[in-house]
Amino acid sequence: MGTLAILGVGLIGGSYGLAAKARGLYSHVVGWVRSPATADAASRLGAIDEATHDLGKAVAQAEMIVLCTPPAMMPALCQQIRPLAPRGVVVTDAASVKGRLVRECEEALGPEVGFVGGHPMAGSERAGVANAREDLFVGAHYVLTPTERTQPWALQPVEDFAQRLGAIVLRMSPDDHDAAVARASHLPHIAASATAQVAIASSRARAVHGAGLRDTTRVAAGDPQLWAEILSANADALREPLGETIARLSELSRLLAARDQEGIREWLQLGATLRRSLDAGEEPEP
Amino acid sequence: MGTLAILGVGLIGGSYGLAAKARGLYSHVVGWVRSPATADAASRLGAIDEATHDLGKAVAQAEMIVLCTPPAMMPALCQQIRPLAPRGVVVTDAASVKGRLVRECEEALGPEVGFVGGHPMAGSERAGVANAREDLFVGAHYVLTPTERTQPWALQPVEDFAQRLGAIVLRMSPDDHDAAVARASHLPHIAASATAQVAIASSRARAVHGAGLRDTTRVAAGDPQLWAEILSANADALREPLGETIARLSELSRLLAARDQEGIREWLQLGATLRRSLDAGEEPEP
Repeated sequence: MGTLAILGVGLIGGSYGLAAKARGLYSHVVGWVRSPATADAASRLGAIDEATHDLGKAVAQAEMIVLCTPPAMMPALCQQIRPLAPRGVVVTDAASVKGRLVRECEEALGPEVGFVGGHPMAGSERAGVANAREDLFVGAHYVLTPTERTQPWALQPVEDFAQRLGAIVLRMSPDDHDAAVARASHLPHIAASATAQVAIASSRARAVHGAGLRDTTRVAAGDPQLWAEILSANADALREPLGETIARLSELSRLLAARDQEGIREWLQLGATLRRSLDAGEEPEP
Repeated sequence: MGTLAILGVGLIGGSYGLAAKARGLYSHVVGWVRSPATADAASRLGAIDEATHDLGKAVAQAEMIVLCTPPAMMPALCQQIRPLAPRGVVVTDAASVKGRLVRECEEALGPEVGFVGGHPMAGSERAGVANAREDLFVGAHYVLTPTERTQPWALQPVEDFAQRLGAIVLRMSPDDHDAAVARASHLPHIAASATAQVAIASSRARAVHGAGLRDTTRVAAGDPQLWAEILSANADALREPLGETIARLSELSRLLAARDQEGIREWLQLGATLRRSLDAGEEPEP
């Protein structure tokens, strides 16, 4: 059973704790928490058995360490962990952009500490440990990003952990992951926000809005600070899909100006075919 | 009680029939239907009491006529109705773009036939009478677009009808309506389709997609032919919001290239504030 150390106990960190305890994956869960209020809340919710702000104490007994802090802190945290971590410990993280971060964490931890980057594709518009849920990972995609530097003995425990949380595990290279989430997650967030900015600012549009606007813009309510960090970290992978989106909208603008109804229909048909294939769980027709 | 004539019995027309009968608004519901298969389906579902493809017969006894055909047919249909309609009849429609259409229907019907443009903001990704629902209008916004030509005796019956269907009635000029739905309904459809076109075409993005992509693109599955007609009809009112959206995305593109995390946060903050105000039912802060 052993000890799970969660570094940073917010929505995601707290959900790891609740899920690990509900499923009996570890006998002890330690949370590395800096704010006393968060430590109290996490303990009261049962997300952790023990709270500490002493990093050495947090990781000393750990079999598995999950980094759930803001991603910008992670490489420095890995450097601090390196001399403190017990032999054979495996470190993973929950950051939603992987490329450079994975390389920096591997570098900082060195070859003695196991590391596998991870991205649980689960979340909520509501941040903070108070919104943590033991079923947050159930049925969610969970991408692991092993590299040529990944220690062979480190991958299996992280994959087992993710599966036992109820997630569906996928493996990709860090760069492939970043390109995939740029399209599947970051672009929808950007489109939702741009639509909200233009549509909801109009009081008449607010008055007549329906489920279409609500659904299309739902994710735009997410934490701007958190999403600014994510988008900024993934700026390289976003260039292509964002450029394609602007080009598609400019093309529609041209079709509308020309009142080219057949061209507009074809433009819409592509989106409809792809969106319907998502519901059907099929690959779209070429 | 009297007779309700529904011209065109698909999702919307069928829902008028089911709702009017369930709520006892009319003693008799006639459907003007061209396809025998649709006539059978509508009768079997109880959406209409009588099906006919004879326009004179459809409208001869009507107190209220609702146009639910493709909008492009409506002005010509109004010209045919004019000599057939009984004295005092009120005509309304369910088209989702109003400006020019309302002027053309008013012109075609002349001053003897009452006309008030209407737009029930309810629908579904699934077209056809088989998807009609008696509660389709319940709680939905329903815009009426009276003009300076609207006969005073015509407005009240249409407003009563919409309210008795369970809808929330709003009044706007046809042009104000078109500007409002361009932002609240047509722009989200366009953004959803563009996002689907760019995101779902990538097989890796499909593999990692979650609720964010599904929600943001849900409406893109709607009927491309129907939506091409709508967008084409509202091309003038779409120019401004579509241009603003492209400008917002281009601005974000610039912020990403500059890795301007604070600028990105501010960009996202505007969308988050507006989207949250929609849930709270508040006016956004200026």
